[in-house]
Amino acid sequence: MQTVVHLVSGDETEQQTALAIAENLLADESGDIDDVAIVVQAGGIEAVTAGGDAADDVRHLLEDGVPVKACSNTLEMEGLEASDLVDGVETVPEGAVEVTRLQDEGYAYVRP
Amino acid sequence: MQTVVHLVSGDETEQQTALAIAENLLADESGDIDDVAIVVQAGGIEAVTAGGDAADDVRHLLEDGVPVKACSNTLEMEGLEASDLVDGVETVPEGAVEVTRLQDEGYAYVRP
Amino acid sequence: MQTVVHLVSGDETEQQTALAIAENLLADESGDIDDVAIVVQAGGIEAVTAGGDAADDVRHLLEDGVPVKACSNTLEMEGLEASDLVDGVETVPEGAVEVTRLQDEGYAYVRP
Repeated sequence: MQTVVHLVSGDETEQQTALAIAENLLADESGDIDDVAIVVQAGGIEAVTAGGDAADDVRHLLEDGVPVKACSNTLEMEGLEASDLVDGVETVPEGAVEVTRLQDEGYAYVRP
Repeated sequence: MQTVVHLVSGDETEQQTALAIAENLLADESGDIDDVAIVVQAGGIEAVTAGGDAADDVRHLLEDGVPVKACSNTLEMEGLEASDLVDGVETVPEGAVEVTRLQDEGYAYVRP
Repeated sequence: MQTVVHLVSGDETEQQTALAIAENLLADESGDIDDVAIVVQAGGIEAVTAGGDAADDVRHLLEDGVPVKACSNTLEMEGLEASDLVDGVETVPEGAVEVTRLQDEGYAYVRP
């Protein structure tokens, strides 16, 4: 099974929950979770900036092989560049399209 | 691919994000998104009232062919009539049932 | 059709909405909803504690046959025991894994 975590909230607690849930999905001992992806957009983008409070958690997830995909529409709206994000974070044209694509491929959706 | 956007939050920023994401899904240049629908309930209902701050954004989505479906249970709880909503917003008996039906038909789910 | 309601928010209004939506799914007169489940984790856990404000609503849902599944990772992080929860609430190792499993079995996902 596969899961996409949608990091879309500007609330710091919800952002921390999203990252923790991604870690817990990875750590799941049932062995039923094959892949986890994180799609970041809107208020959630702050959580994946290189200078953000959650940057170390994001690095840890990237090191564990979780793709972190940031929405280019959000970057543009927030006046951010891809280079402002934690190294290794990818960009996609639109977060919700990526979330749709992943669900279409069979990923379950979780929005903490 | 098809996507249902669930406009369920009473938070104005999350409401604006939901409407913007629906627009972005429509505008997606990959051509992979065939249909977008919005289901509105609970705290989200304010966003689709005729006098609400987001009314123009809702009209724009309706003009672009996005069905906007408001939960009748929410209208009743909030003492609202269908006539209080932006012209063209439909009603459904229960928003979460509609969201379930759309997912059952193959729509991906996005909750901004 | 089947629906899983994800009770993951620490916001009391969103918690009440989640429980009300579960009731509304059950009460749906179309007869299209066969099963409803609630998965509780992160900030949502307060809503299913025996002493919480929503305890009576949770009992009512359990009496109506809705399984309520609390995340053990959350219990541990919050220093709670299963015995602190409303009688009848089950535990699962990780809420997001359970949400993934239910979607994999065909449940639609709703995150109020």
